[in-house]
Amino acid sequence: MHPPHHASTVFLGAADVQRLVRRLGPSACIAGVAAQIEADFRRWADFDKSARVAAHSEVGVIELMPVADATRFAFKYVNGHPKNTAAGLPTVMAFGLLADVATGAPRLLAELTLLTAIRTAAMSALAARHLARPGSGTMALVGNGAQAEFQALAFRDLLGIHTLRLFDTDRAATAKLQANLAGQGLRLQACASAAEAARGADILTTVTADKARATIVTPAMLAPGLHLNAVGGDCPGKTELHPDVLRAARVFVEYEPQSRIEGDVQQMPADFPVTEFWRVLTGAAPGRQAEGEITVFDSVGFALEDHAALVWLAEAAARQGLGAPLDLVAAPADPKDLFGTLRPLAEQAAAQAA
Amino acid sequence: MHPPHHASTVFLGAADVQRLVRRLGPSACIAGVAAQIEADFRRWADFDKSARVAAHSEVGVIELMPVADATRFAFKYVNGHPKNTAAGLPTVMAFGLLADVATGAPRLLAELTLLTAIRTAAMSALAARHLARPGSGTMALVGNGAQAEFQALAFRDLLGIHTLRLFDTDRAATAKLQANLAGQGLRLQACASAAEAARGADILTTVTADKARATIVTPAMLAPGLHLNAVGGDCPGKTELHPDVLRAARVFVEYEPQSRIEGDVQQMPADFPVTEFWRVLTGAAPGRQAEGEITVFDSVGFALEDHAALVWLAEAAARQGLGAPLDLVAAPADPKDLFGTLRPLAEQAAAQAA
Repeated sequence: MHPPHHASTVFLGAADVQRLVRRLGPSACIAGVAAQIEADFRRWADFDKSARVAAHSEVGVIELMPVADATRFAFKYVNGHPKNTAAGLPTVMAFGLLADVATGAPRLLAELTLLTAIRTAAMSALAARHLARPGSGTMALVGNGAQAEFQALAFRDLLGIHTLRLFDTDRAATAKLQANLAGQGLRLQACASAAEAARGADILTTVTADKARATIVTPAMLAPGLHLNAVGGDCPGKTELHPDVLRAARVFVEYEPQSRIEGDVQQMPADFPVTEFWRVLTGAAPGRQAEGEITVFDSVGFALEDHAALVWLAEAAARQGLGAPLDLVAAPADPKDLFGTLRPLAEQAAAQAA
Repeated sequence: MHPPHHASTVFLGAADVQRLVRRLGPSACIAGVAAQIEADFRRWADFDKSARVAAHSEVGVIELMPVADATRFAFKYVNGHPKNTAAGLPTVMAFGLLADVATGAPRLLAELTLLTAIRTAAMSALAARHLARPGSGTMALVGNGAQAEFQALAFRDLLGIHTLRLFDTDRAATAKLQANLAGQGLRLQACASAAEAARGADILTTVTADKARATIVTPAMLAPGLHLNAVGGDCPGKTELHPDVLRAARVFVEYEPQSRIEGDVQQMPADFPVTEFWRVLTGAAPGRQAEGEITVFDSVGFALEDHAALVWLAEAAARQGLGAPLDLVAAPADPKDLFGTLRPLAEQAAAQAA
């Protein structure tokens, strides 16, 4: 008889993750996740990568995002439903899993809605450190919804942004953002349009939710040296930049096969030049090359960022004593005897003792 | 302020699913899942289908299997690690999710290891009802591991099989199977080889685990009119049938794009003829056409079977009052204010009241 060997999974629910981020503070979480993303992107070749699997409907998308190295398999479940907020549900909801490649046993199941916002902001700021002009101080933030605060804090902490120029088609979203960022050492300037927000900005971040071919950024809004952090165009048929904006810029992406389908570059021919960001990070390709150059980080969100978020989360939660075991998969005492788990428990105990 | 609207997910853990299957009995579960699979396969065109996403390593595979119709998105996480049993872990572990297509909200998270065995057996028996000779009474069962009892009961209940001829390279597995099936109204005959087991059988079921190009079934083992239910060849590089066995037979598969990669037909040229089983079920293609014909159901396991298992499980568990809410994804009171969930709870309550 084999000794019982439980494939126990740790569960971190929404309440656990909230508790963790409250305890550590969002800045520390953003910094920790950014460091883990950087470490993972530096060993890009170690990972088995694929474009995420997306199930599209007229109102949104549901995606599975797997990635694995030799030891760990990670995946995230995430949706994108812009009209959810009208029904009181978040636009984006997510959870993820870490499993052992050697056995397939799930090790961590965790809520990832907060961590998705954190890792997206961490990724944006990490890219901007290599792509924005040194000394950038002012950022336009167009789209003031659920992710906006995290972008603001990441750019404050990792780039030194001190002034934010805010715009959203929903004024209540901007008011919410201003309230949430009060006392965070940021100058907040509400603007009447995306174009007004962009005026004088060193960095223009777009994080809008509409599932449409939107033109949030037009060529008229470009100033020499601008860095665009384009976060919201992340789905076929969902874009934020006018094609001429892309033509005027050097464009950086996370994982080219996925970005060609989902990013703002979906508007461009297949041979439109893009650079994968890991190459900049490792020195294989240059980042910003000139003061006046226009750069675009065409972010769509890649599974490796969620891998980094999950790895960071697993360690941080363990240090804080958060998480509880969950019987996510069966652990029969004799692994060849799944049927035996259906016997009455007393009979199973007797068989075990025999 | 939006009213709080919780995206509550029901969780059915391994203990819940065991309890449910014990209460209803495996036969009732197999019958229920088989009926749901039949219903789903009959409306094949309603589903957005894709081959599963597999992460292969030297010792196993981890797969994500998504499928969706206009209302429900389903996916299963499942591994296949043949050497796990030596370490006290099951070869296969699985869990799955049902979500609303309209919002992306996860509705059910459930352990699926038991249900994977049940749906695989239900699918096999459903196919055999259309492909095996009418009046089949004897089945050879090669591979007596975790899935064998479920295959035995499904074929007893849905096909009228009364005699099982058993073989496994591990004699302890056969002994376990005999003990588990005692008193189930089946004649059990332990055999010294796969060839001996096949002798006189109307149906030959292979459900072996080795991740290798194995030749469990050779042309010499074929008798006129035999139906082969080939369950274990379900992964690139993992096959059970000699190519000449396939050449001698009419071959039926679940979802051709996936079976060409993973099934025993991976050994054959791309134009080797196969028939998708849903076509037989709906009358679009013939099943067995002659008494002496050899038929093969080259089963690999398709996401739609897990969809059916999850739909059946959700209803059966709800009727039995099983399952508990799990905070798998965040449900902020104001869905545009994810950051607000990080404020101290007292402050959030005050903001809600305002």
